[in-house]
Amino acid sequence: MLPDIIKFDDKGLIPVIAQDYKTNEVLMMAWMNKESFELTLKEKTVYYFSRSRKKLWKKGEISGQIQKLKEILIDCDGDSILLKVEQIGVACHTGRKNCFFHKLGDDNKISINQEVLISQEILYGQNNKKDN
Amino acid sequence: MLPDIIKFDDKGLIPVIAQDYKTNEVLMMAWMNKESFELTLKEKTVYYFSRSRKKLWKKGEISGQIQKLKEILIDCDGDSILLKVEQIGVACHTGRKNCFFHKLGDDNKISINQEVLISQEILYGQNNKKDN
Repeated sequence: MLPDIIKFDDKGLIPVIAQDYKTNEVLMMAWMNKESFELTLKEKTVYYFSRSRKKLWKKGEISGQIQKLKEILIDCDGDSILLKVEQIGVACHTGRKNCFFHKLGDDNKISINQEVLISQEILYGQNNKKDN
Repeated sequence: MLPDIIKFDDKGLIPVIAQDYKTNEVLMMAWMNKESFELTLKEKTVYYFSRSRKKLWKKGEISGQIQKLKEILIDCDGDSILLKVEQIGVACHTGRKNCFFHKLGDDNKISINQEVLISQEILYGQNNKKDN
């Protein structure tokens, strides 16, 4: 059963922020549908809905970089979710700790503010880039 | 000029997370359109686009609870933004520090995990509830 307060959008999705439960680092933003929310609750590991692949996505299923669920918080309007998680390894499919590594400078140029901690080859083997 | 990396959705919007630049507390999630992004850059105070009111929304315009821009980070796919901000007062229109005050318990029930710090009357005077 889903809490009544949660409002999915016209595509059946809700935006979700994943935050490190110890450091408060924001790891990523992704989307859940009803099924991914229920599976996350049941298994205590985070599932999203991949909009690009149009299917359920268990975070870390291929790469092993799973997110263990620690806490679920819902905002005032019920239209966004904040997950406190324990991130195993890295959150970003690029091998960086979190996905927000493009820093916008005063000159309007982008710089990269995080190093790659795990190579794509280790994360995904011989496969192409995939959602992490 | 907007950085090329930023991708607005089919409604011309992008989801934005506001995070306290000192404590890393996640304050809220809202949406920007091109105009609000450009105004935020120009004025160094945060503008969103209100989906409910369908218009540009300067955070804190009515309540005084503005967000001073400290840093803009863009995610790996360019489809979400993380703002580091200095929150003046409270982020939530309910008068709580942040919007994620509905905690989902193991019994699937919601509890409130934050107190109201500023009353609605002080925030909005005799007006009805408004976006903060």
